[in-house]
Amino acid sequence: MSAGAAKSPLIAMRGAGYYSSNTAGAKSVIDSAADLALEAIAGLDLPAGPGPFSIADFGAADGGTSLDLMRRVVGALRERAADLPITLTYTDLPGNDFSALFGMLQAEGGLGRAPGVFAFASGTTFYRQIVPDGTLHFGFSATAMHWLSRSPGLIADHTHAVGASPAETEAYRTQSLADWETILLARARELASGGVLVMANFSVDDDGHYLGWTGGVNMHDSFAAHWRALAADGTLRAEEYRAAAFQQYYKTRDEFAAPFADPQSPVRRAGLTLERIFSRVTPCPYRADFERHGDAQAFARAYVPTLRSWSESTFFSALDTGRPIEERRAIIDRFYGACEDAVAADPAGHAMDYVHCFMVIRKA
Amino acid sequence: MSAGAAKSPLIAMRGAGYYSSNTAGAKSVIDSAADLALEAIAGLDLPAGPGPFSIADFGAADGGTSLDLMRRVVGALRERAADLPITLTYTDLPGNDFSALFGMLQAEGGLGRAPGVFAFASGTTFYRQIVPDGTLHFGFSATAMHWLSRSPGLIADHTHAVGASPAETEAYRTQSLADWETILLARARELASGGVLVMANFSVDDDGHYLGWTGGVNMHDSFAAHWRALAADGTLRAEEYRAAAFQQYYKTRDEFAAPFADPQSPVRRAGLTLERIFSRVTPCPYRADFERHGDAQAFARAYVPTLRSWSESTFFSALDTGRPIEERRAIIDRFYGACEDAVAADPAGHAMDYVHCFMVIRKA
Repeated sequence: MSAGAAKSPLIAMRGAGYYSSNTAGAKSVIDSAADLALEAIAGLDLPAGPGPFSIADFGAADGGTSLDLMRRVVGALRERAADLPITLTYTDLPGNDFSALFGMLQAEGGLGRAPGVFAFASGTTFYRQIVPDGTLHFGFSATAMHWLSRSPGLIADHTHAVGASPAETEAYRTQSLADWETILLARARELASGGVLVMANFSVDDDGHYLGWTGGVNMHDSFAAHWRALAADGTLRAEEYRAAAFQQYYKTRDEFAAPFADPQSPVRRAGLTLERIFSRVTPCPYRADFERHGDAQAFARAYVPTLRSWSESTFFSALDTGRPIEERRAIIDRFYGACEDAVAADPAGHAMDYVHCFMVIRKA
Repeated sequence: MSAGAAKSPLIAMRGAGYYSSNTAGAKSVIDSAADLALEAIAGLDLPAGPGPFSIADFGAADGGTSLDLMRRVVGALRERAADLPITLTYTDLPGNDFSALFGMLQAEGGLGRAPGVFAFASGTTFYRQIVPDGTLHFGFSATAMHWLSRSPGLIADHTHAVGASPAETEAYRTQSLADWETILLARARELASGGVLVMANFSVDDDGHYLGWTGGVNMHDSFAAHWRALAADGTLRAEEYRAAAFQQYYKTRDEFAAPFADPQSPVRRAGLTLERIFSRVTPCPYRADFERHGDAQAFARAYVPTLRSWSESTFFSALDTGRPIEERRAIIDRFYGACEDAVAADPAGHAMDYVHCFMVIRKA
């Protein structure tokens, strides 16, 4: 769930490993994508020349969640070609914590130190081309591309497009479809012939389910309700209440597939074809832990920080910068405190199940 | 004057642009190296294949000081080949402020946004190979490779090898010569045939001059004296006094040239030849400002921060971690305060002139 959109105060992750250690769910998704990646790579011709086999992780954050997948991919390539040079390029926004990324990669035993492996970072939005034309062999992205390149506008009485009015939703949808084409055309330029993209993006599935809404308590409605309560009790000013809106949109499978439908579409003409697409729900690991231990307090204490890791920047940046920073921090602490108290008091139905659309895309 | 050695608590730069804005001298050195770089690149065959022209800056810090040189190099390549893809790889230790680097490169009008230019970072020590074999066309490094890969030991009664005892100096010299061969052999693997390295490294010149010692007040002796004073007045504990030693060595021109002398040396057998080598003194820009304005207080306030930008981590990390962080910060503030007061009280002879050894090295 990393930020990959154009720079925006709304999009920022907490650094120093906070992200990975609080996102066991994200890692679980990537692990379940690893088989897909290995299969896609097995059918891929290795570079004929002396040049490296080039791998990129788009919107990689600190690289922690995709590490096992990358190890497996590198291992599979090593079996086919003992001396093949391999580059790993991790991309995210300029403000990403690249020191945490390199600290992990370059530690003793780190993947960046494996023989013939060369690790790089690019602090470049994935809405732009990141590597030179025709040089990418395997591109990966997980849980990053729901972040939009720009804000489509305010959401009057909710904090996410999933709860917005029809007109607001349409603005988010339009931006998301344009962004998706931009992403695909940039990757089309980057990919070598035969190269492959494996993606797992947040999505609305055929049951209408999405992140945090799979039939129990709706996580986004809960966020909106707690935020509304802070407006109702006078903590938030009217403009702060309105300003909180995730710069995100969850596309349906049909929306993800649309650019590939027409052979004359820009994406198809750029050489991309959609080889596989399917939805999958990944159960919330914190909820699963709770089912085992039954301790509602412990559940709330473990669960809410994972929500906070990716949502905090949106709420924080809605606050008036005229307030002292300590005051803003206190409001945000109160907000997540209320979220945690609600979960602890009545844990039934709380879960941040992940709903992903998995895709395999190949360049002709 | 960036850190490029293996990870060490002694080697850390202050982030967020502090480095570049306080190192006008470093930029001046790189600007005077730009002609050398352009000349070296003018004689270089462009890649025959579709692959990119690859540029690296080793020990780049926030990339600010080398930016103009990089713009000129990219501009010169563009004139020769309008569509040539160009990669810029900035290397430094994992803890470097890569966000400041990418913030600059990816800002509106930034070099990372220039057409056909692709910017990357590698948080990898230059004591290891950073890019794949035979892929580097132009490597640059300025004022970084005096940082050693490991500490050769304590310096009993000084804070730099230039003031150490003969036995201590020999330990630093031995480490520096071994490190230099390691650096050159790593670059030899990286360079494409015909590829070139341009370096400007701190050095001791034929007059025995070096950074901060060109006949006036000796900067390193001043550091040592102010540090000794903090020990004498009981501020520093004995082990803290001894622990402060820059993990650095300034090689002579002969020491830089030594690995190239024998055709059977590892460096020569790896394909590297030394095309040019010369020393040059770059006058301290803060001193030059002072000569114009004559305000000793203003000189001290401008001059000491540039010293602090690269020296602070060495002194700070000598302090006992058992002291509260605020106490350690206060000691360091006092130390630089004393440095500043001394300069303000008697500015005569204070100057951090740079003494560099410039080299052009080519791979056969």
